[in-house]
Amino acid sequence: MFESFFENKKSWLSSEGPDSDIVISTRIRLARNIEGYPFPNRATLAQKNQVFLKVGEAYPKIEHLDSAFFLPMESIDDLDRQFLLERHLISQEHMHYPRGKGLILSRSEVVSIMINEEDHLRMQVIVSGFDLVKAWRIINKIDDEISTYLLFSFSPEIGYLTSCPTNVGTGLRASCMLHLPALVMTKRVDKILELLAKLSFTTRGLFGEGTQALGNFFQISNQVSLGMSEEEIMDSLAGVVKQVKEQELNARENLLKRYLPTLEDSVWRAWGILKCCRLISTKEALSHLSMLRLGVDLGIIKEVGKDIINRFFIMIQPAHLQKIEGKVLKEEERDYIRAELIREKLS
Amino acid sequence: MFESFFENKKSWLSSEGPDSDIVISTRIRLARNIEGYPFPNRATLAQKNQVFLKVGEAYPKIEHLDSAFFLPMESIDDLDRQFLLERHLISQEHMHYPRGKGLILSRSEVVSIMINEEDHLRMQVIVSGFDLVKAWRIINKIDDEISTYLLFSFSPEIGYLTSCPTNVGTGLRASCMLHLPALVMTKRVDKILELLAKLSFTTRGLFGEGTQALGNFFQISNQVSLGMSEEEIMDSLAGVVKQVKEQELNARENLLKRYLPTLEDSVWRAWGILKCCRLISTKEALSHLSMLRLGVDLGIIKEVGKDIINRFFIMIQPAHLQKIEGKVLKEEERDYIRAELIREKLS
Repeated sequence: MFESFFENKKSWLSSEGPDSDIVISTRIRLARNIEGYPFPNRATLAQKNQVFLKVGEAYPKIEHLDSAFFLPMESIDDLDRQFLLERHLISQEHMHYPRGKGLILSRSEVVSIMINEEDHLRMQVIVSGFDLVKAWRIINKIDDEISTYLLFSFSPEIGYLTSCPTNVGTGLRASCMLHLPALVMTKRVDKILELLAKLSFTTRGLFGEGTQALGNFFQISNQVSLGMSEEEIMDSLAGVVKQVKEQELNARENLLKRYLPTLEDSVWRAWGILKCCRLISTKEALSHLSMLRLGVDLGIIKEVGKDIINRFFIMIQPAHLQKIEGKVLKEEERDYIRAELIREKLS
Repeated sequence: MFESFFENKKSWLSSEGPDSDIVISTRIRLARNIEGYPFPNRATLAQKNQVFLKVGEAYPKIEHLDSAFFLPMESIDDLDRQFLLERHLISQEHMHYPRGKGLILSRSEVVSIMINEEDHLRMQVIVSGFDLVKAWRIINKIDDEISTYLLFSFSPEIGYLTSCPTNVGTGLRASCMLHLPALVMTKRVDKILELLAKLSFTTRGLFGEGTQALGNFFQISNQVSLGMSEEEIMDSLAGVVKQVKEQELNARENLLKRYLPTLEDSVWRAWGILKCCRLISTKEALSHLSMLRLGVDLGIIKEVGKDIINRFFIMIQPAHLQKIEGKVLKEEERDYIRAELIREKLS
């Protein structure tokens, strides 16, 4: 399943969005629950199935979703579930525990709705570059339309009700994925992350919690969902992301001005290793791809396009490799295939 | 001075000698002192000068040496002295403390005679590959001829007298420089070095003491000079070197059979880094060149010849780089020039 995703030219991986030399993608998700049903962690399997079916009736009427996949998670095999996780379309929870859960997924990968994850609906829109306005426009329209068919749990005093109190209110989480190699190289990133935490923003890695700093990717998102309007949340995130982006730009300029030979050396070594290696782990590949991407952003390397590198970050992941090869691969085999794939695509 | 050495096609760097895939070079040196003069560490400057002049009268009559350089060490500038050290033609002592010392050096670099080092004469012959017979034939002839013009300190009971007791007797030290990357990779080299020490052989690195294991080079030489004939010393060294060489061959076969992907990966990564890097230290370059050389020996890499890599091991040294560039270079500049030189020669 999902083989067509390899050809998706308009997904968040396209590097076509604004500021996409630093801000890889923007994501907004809304948590919603259907009135009259217990939250998923309290619901029986039968109740979850009812929720799944109710959503199933509603989604085909929604623009953006009329041709979407609508699937019980149990109908998707292990490899495909991991594949969706690697493409940032479902959560770890949704991958590991498919029972009673479902998924609506637009063919373009822009919209995905997890059913019976922590909340009845976890609606996500993910777009290329730094583009909260676009992401918000899409998800807001879907939310408006779907709420004409589904009655969401809502309190006039506190807003949308959610399974976890941190999501109560707007149910909104907005995040941007930033590529910050220069701030990492100049050792300024930790200070910035500390400051973000003080301002109530969360930072995670490329694949969520525990993967921080892999490939120098940092996902910044709001922690507070209650007591602020959607616009306030997005404005404050936009302000912070803009500042971090400018810090990264400054750090890059500084590297170019003061440490050009070291910078060029790091970039070209990454290129040399990626072009020549015969075995490579995901972690090592991410680190070299990050340097390569920086080199392309700064015009040091002109032999390869940004979108190719963007796709690499995802293509070299275990489930992607196995789908490309069409079979289950052991770790050593993956390291070999990964190196081969990178060599092929770079030459 | 010595610019012509860059073009020397017949020096020990040529990789033309027997077994030169593993045994890079064979070196023999004889320590000799002239009757009637104190050893250099006890001699006055005037006495050292007399020794220098006596040798100066004798050398032009010797075959192999008739067109040789004959120079007081003080007439050679710092850079050229370091250059000679890097080419294994003089010792650290001779480089650092030139006063009262001299050098005879054949244009082919095969023969070098240090005057007033630890002994009045330290005669060295160095040839490509595993070839004790050839080295001995040359040095023995020189020793025979020169002793018709110079009377050497000799005791019928114990043999040649030398400044340090470890050299008394034959005054002979024979050594082979071996490239043992597979024994290092398979972690068997330490056991072998221990065994060699028990058998009274010394092992050093590419540039003598304290440089052990740089580039996976190991120089094996006899410790005992007294109580054995020249033939016995050389036979025992030959036997040991042959065994170590066979161990290395076995280790290479083992790597090819059991660890081919890892081996290919290491070799190709070395190639990738050397072809792409913009800054590289001597130490790091030696380590990658060692892997590259192994790759060439094993037929994994066919893009470059052994002799080019052999020359690299020496060319990338600080004084060589500065002679090539024709000026004094700071360390960072050397790292840059070294990377550039390697890239150029490999493409």
